[in-house]
Amino acid sequence: MATIEFWFEFASTYSYPAAHAVEAAAKARGVEVKWRSFLLGPIFAAQGWNDSPFNIYPAKGRHMVRDMQRCAEERGLAFAMPTVFPANSLLACRLALAGEAEGWTAAFSKAVYAAEFAEGRDIGEDALLASILRGLEIDADAVIVHARSQTIKDRLFARTAEAQARGIFGAPSFLTAAGELFWGDDRLEQALAWAKH
Amino acid sequence: MATIEFWFEFASTYSYPAAHAVEAAAKARGVEVKWRSFLLGPIFAAQGWNDSPFNIYPAKGRHMVRDMQRCAEERGLAFAMPTVFPANSLLACRLALAGEAEGWTAAFSKAVYAAEFAEGRDIGEDALLASILRGLEIDADAVIVHARSQTIKDRLFARTAEAQARGIFGAPSFLTAAGELFWGDDRLEQALAWAKH
Repeated sequence: MATIEFWFEFASTYSYPAAHAVEAAAKARGVEVKWRSFLLGPIFAAQGWNDSPFNIYPAKGRHMVRDMQRCAEERGLAFAMPTVFPANSLLACRLALAGEAEGWTAAFSKAVYAAEFAEGRDIGEDALLASILRGLEIDADAVIVHARSQTIKDRLFARTAEAQARGIFGAPSFLTAAGELFWGDDRLEQALAWAKH
Repeated sequence: MATIEFWFEFASTYSYPAAHAVEAAAKARGVEVKWRSFLLGPIFAAQGWNDSPFNIYPAKGRHMVRDMQRCAEERGLAFAMPTVFPANSLLACRLALAGEAEGWTAAFSKAVYAAEFAEGRDIGEDALLASILRGLEIDADAVIVHARSQTIKDRLFARTAEAQARGIFGAPSFLTAAGELFWGDDRLEQALAWAKH
């Protein structure tokens, strides 16, 4: 079965519609999705950015908000900019990575994106993440301790280095088994078509 | 009749497929296209960039080239990165602006984009622009003198200031009569739909 790697970050606005759409779109084409949590922060820092480009470049940020509103409406998705942007996504990204071994990354990630960009909540808060985990019948306390372990920290560090080594510079990104890189929610369908090449 | 403003720059790669597609797409929806030549340089400079972001951020640049190859192939367009990138687009942008009053901006611009991104030629060369003008049965010498006049210089300066004032931060961009701004070749169809709102 063809696979696609879906690289996402919770601080990324356009990863929200992509996370919402990727599974159904992949299923329709008979492609398996591998969710890949990583950190944009170190990649942006290497480019000289210490904030979201949507904050660094205000005109780009204003367009992004309006574009997200229009695109969300077209797809029947709720959209609200979160009170804190970009969110401190570190714990959420560690949790999403920790979940890969246990199979709950997709469900958790979609719920985090919905809290952040449909409800506008601050996903940097532990209590919110714990409540999302509990809603999925996951032992929140144990999983949060695990997500903060050196094992997961090291794994997320290595994952982010892998992203950079494979050419990723933003999120969402899609990678095919053959190494074709696609950047942006707009490229989902094209990436899935290439996954089957 | 609904109208859409198509804001383009000859130093912009994604303006090439957009320039190729905009007229047929607009015609299919009964929308009139207004071609709007402007300069990205001053807008990028105000953001702290003195080069194309595709050169400043090499990973982004590598993805852009591959993405353009894939998208061009999908649409049956030739694609070759020009020998000089970004091109010195100043005279070409002035010519495109000068052509608006005479109705040849669209034909001229499509020919310039084809020379630049289908054939990979350097559109910073006067001789190439002159030969494109002659191919359209335009008096190249007279038009180039006019394009270098203070009138056209002032108009392009004002046009670029207008772009910035209306929120444009990249190319291609589309603006509807109601002021809805869309950035990127990907947004052409959506912009045309909004033009009729």
